[in-house]
Amino acid sequence: MSDRLLYLPLGGAGEIGMNCYVYGYGPAGRERYIVVDLGVTFPSMDGSPGVDLIFADVSWLEERKERIDAIFITHAHEDHVGAVGHLWPRLGAPIYARTFTAHLARLKFEEHGHDELMIKTVSAWPQQVECGPFKVGFLPVSHSIPESSALVIDSPAGRVIHTGDFKIDETPVVGEAFDRALWESVCKDGVKALVCDSTNVFTDTPGRSESEVVEPLTELMKDLKGMVAATTFASNIARVKSLAEAGTKAGRSVVLLGRAMRKMITAGIETGIISDFPKTISPEQAGDVPRENLLLLTTGSQGEYRAATAQLSRGKYLGLKMAEGDTVIFSSKTIPGNEMPVARILNNFSEMGVNCITGRNDIHVSGHANRPDLTTMHEVVKPQIVIPMHGEHRHLREHAALAETNGFKGVVAPNGVGIDLTGDTPKVTEYVETGRTYLDGKVQIGAMDGVVRDRIRMAQYGLVVATVIVEDDEPLGDCWCEVRGLPEIGLSRAPLVDVLEADINQFLNRAGKKTMRDDGKLEEDMRRILRKTTNDETGKKPEIQIVISRLSA
Amino acid sequence: MSDRLLYLPLGGAGEIGMNCYVYGYGPAGRERYIVVDLGVTFPSMDGSPGVDLIFADVSWLEERKERIDAIFITHAHEDHVGAVGHLWPRLGAPIYARTFTAHLARLKFEEHGHDELMIKTVSAWPQQVECGPFKVGFLPVSHSIPESSALVIDSPAGRVIHTGDFKIDETPVVGEAFDRALWESVCKDGVKALVCDSTNVFTDTPGRSESEVVEPLTELMKDLKGMVAATTFASNIARVKSLAEAGTKAGRSVVLLGRAMRKMITAGIETGIISDFPKTISPEQAGDVPRENLLLLTTGSQGEYRAATAQLSRGKYLGLKMAEGDTVIFSSKTIPGNEMPVARILNNFSEMGVNCITGRNDIHVSGHANRPDLTTMHEVVKPQIVIPMHGEHRHLREHAALAETNGFKGVVAPNGVGIDLTGDTPKVTEYVETGRTYLDGKVQIGAMDGVVRDRIRMAQYGLVVATVIVEDDEPLGDCWCEVRGLPEIGLSRAPLVDVLEADINQFLNRAGKKTMRDDGKLEEDMRRILRKTTNDETGKKPEIQIVISRLSA
Repeated sequence: MSDRLLYLPLGGAGEIGMNCYVYGYGPAGRERYIVVDLGVTFPSMDGSPGVDLIFADVSWLEERKERIDAIFITHAHEDHVGAVGHLWPRLGAPIYARTFTAHLARLKFEEHGHDELMIKTVSAWPQQVECGPFKVGFLPVSHSIPESSALVIDSPAGRVIHTGDFKIDETPVVGEAFDRALWESVCKDGVKALVCDSTNVFTDTPGRSESEVVEPLTELMKDLKGMVAATTFASNIARVKSLAEAGTKAGRSVVLLGRAMRKMITAGIETGIISDFPKTISPEQAGDVPRENLLLLTTGSQGEYRAATAQLSRGKYLGLKMAEGDTVIFSSKTIPGNEMPVARILNNFSEMGVNCITGRNDIHVSGHANRPDLTTMHEVVKPQIVIPMHGEHRHLREHAALAETNGFKGVVAPNGVGIDLTGDTPKVTEYVETGRTYLDGKVQIGAMDGVVRDRIRMAQYGLVVATVIVEDDEPLGDCWCEVRGLPEIGLSRAPLVDVLEADINQFLNRAGKKTMRDDGKLEEDMRRILRKTTNDETGKKPEIQIVISRLSA
Repeated sequence: MSDRLLYLPLGGAGEIGMNCYVYGYGPAGRERYIVVDLGVTFPSMDGSPGVDLIFADVSWLEERKERIDAIFITHAHEDHVGAVGHLWPRLGAPIYARTFTAHLARLKFEEHGHDELMIKTVSAWPQQVECGPFKVGFLPVSHSIPESSALVIDSPAGRVIHTGDFKIDETPVVGEAFDRALWESVCKDGVKALVCDSTNVFTDTPGRSESEVVEPLTELMKDLKGMVAATTFASNIARVKSLAEAGTKAGRSVVLLGRAMRKMITAGIETGIISDFPKTISPEQAGDVPRENLLLLTTGSQGEYRAATAQLSRGKYLGLKMAEGDTVIFSSKTIPGNEMPVARILNNFSEMGVNCITGRNDIHVSGHANRPDLTTMHEVVKPQIVIPMHGEHRHLREHAALAETNGFKGVVAPNGVGIDLTGDTPKVTEYVETGRTYLDGKVQIGAMDGVVRDRIRMAQYGLVVATVIVEDDEPLGDCWCEVRGLPEIGLSRAPLVDVLEADINQFLNRAGKKTMRDDGKLEEDMRRILRKTTNDETGKKPEIQIVISRLSA
């Protein structure tokens, strides 16, 4: 059987989040694999209440564990690296990343007690990692976190460029600029496929450089009175640095608030990414500084409930408290889905008389390539085909259409669709079952296991628990009911529990021995009656938990 | 005691939704009241899972029921009229509205079996309704639904203008244009307070007229191939008509899909609001029309799961099915909080190969006054004070600041804050306990009753039910456990239920008679053990339901 080059996304091609892509090379079914990124996505009360984190389901990979030669992490955003601690034991291969990313991955391994030696630090291109049939190099690219890299994936079937997340920024404030000449030289001998970030394909304007926010932030900071807090993604070290410098120029002492904020800046300093970060003071020291001379740099720009910004909006955080006339700057854009928690914070601050600066385009730029920049990327790489990734289905489809407009073949490959890239035409060859794994407390469960479905049902419909003791095939005493998440008083104005107990005991007292003897039948009948009575009384059809306790005579 | 004029918002001043405002006149504590609007807001899985609708808590009004002289409804949007059927029995006063609004309110009364004669149709200004110390007139204003009206509220203490929802539109396609001369004449003798819509206070550009979308929609419709669906708010009859006309001009037969779409157009025709709506065909008739000659006008522009648009995105709706190359037009803007359900629909259509047109500014205009239009309103009315309403706290605060900038006194009065408008300076005189009432199935419950809190807890933490039978202060047989919404297998790799039962039975077998005799103590101990074991096994602290069944010997 001839060898083939396979591309198979398990996560990230159908959502923005939980990135996990597989490349394979070898005879069909016996390929050697490399994995690109092991990211998380975040749960919501809507679809995954109580869940802590969401990963791509890697069962398919786990079953082929012995054929995985390496895991590569493109950059240190949680949707790319967040699952390494949780999923690595199931995959077992060495992890390769550049210094900053490897540093943060090691912190995760430390938390989980995994062997940190399994994380290998790799230099930027032209270094290449040899792993099975592949040679992989890290090609620097600009994004909103340091040391983001595209991967140059060489196999006997040709070169693939996997962009990771990127923007085209020639003045990124911190870290490496987009080096067009280097990219062109890497791509000049022909690229089989460009696997490409699609996040901003619907944004028609050209992307803006990180350096463009420096001046407006400095101007803004000069004019503000009172205490100032500013929030952005902690991992956007360039932005945090610009904010800190703007504050310092305005005569403010800088305080880093929030675990991620301190972790990222520390990681940046320890790995040599930033050498000239302005001096910061601790929250305790801030107590001795007049409040109008303080700048708090806070986590939680997306409205995260426990982050520093949200805590400040609800009162004190580490002894610091915003007051009337103070200002909070959101140097960020609200990610779709986070509008409500962010609005809650803005309203909390409004009630305090704190001014919030939000939605200002001049103090935030996106970290992803806009539509015209995607075209630039297509033209720099000039691949045989473009495979959009890092997007919902609509982004992938739009990006593939853009590629076609630009004169390249565009292929939509959502999660679970394997593409054979070997020949001149890409072919869909596999449909792999994919899905989501939930981290629920400390346990990994499948999204379709029914656990979360049961939780959603209890949240929507409430629960009735009914207990009956059966002795000699007769009810011993009365059955009793408890309700949770249901109105206490129903339409008949009597307590719901009383009405339920009256109905169920009437049934039990008349039920024949045949019914009482049969757990299945008894449970089914009781369930039906309890559901009907609850519906009559409240208009709701609850979940029912029947407990039948049999005493042997 | 001297008479006073009181303004008291119970809903709508602190959120965009569930509008309910009270005006009172008379000696403090013995005022006569009128109510403006009885609206709903919509629940979310996040904060109110399983809830059907949310109203302002009208307990304060209910306690003063005999002093309510009238209820006025400014327009027929659900956040203004949606609760009339549910709350009217608790308030009992006659309801006044203009023809179209009254028609829709009567449909709600019909559903609830209330006396439709309690809904009185009022003509536009200069008609005034005399009710206790008040005289109230409906002053037409443009908005995104026909016959929207501001209220001119006269009392012995002066005239108040309550704008309701509005925009300043001199060419609104359907219904009344904003008549500046009329407004100026009504306000020329002095207005005590302008109680004013704040929705778009953060939008700096001047508002655009409904008529501006007609041409772009017509142009767009001409170019499309295949079947076309277009969605907008059904109540925006002007928009629905513009869409239908654009489709008709492009040679398409128009089908109204979704209950609200048919209800609104029927109401528009029956009340004489629209006389020249293009001919429509039924979904059945559509089967005989070539699909490229169809325009479906569908409900569900906000991603509502059961609405026509969402159903089409998941497959068939009334025999109609979108296919590759078809187009869905969103003539709408996604309301914050609805991004995820709308994205789900867009992705479903993307998977079908259906093109979606969204986010185009030229085919949608807002129904609310933007910041410059609010300034226009301030200047037309020239009130002694501006009281912002219809907004979250941040909107109210920003609007009050805008009023000050415009030279008027601005007062922020959130829900529950009563303002005495009698003298020259408004005074905060009351803090009334306000809140939300949930319609849960068919039952009204308080948001703080704990019912929904219990549901949220079950959704986040799962539930353990443990049953023990006690005879003669000793456990009779083993206690057994059931779990819902918890991982089946814990960290020890054994079924969670087995581990729970082992631990709890070990405890029960060692527990002394003193513990076994005391329900409170026994329950507390069992709860603690079950929670700890679940937490050790899964990292989750579940809700616990203990059932103790005592047999008398």
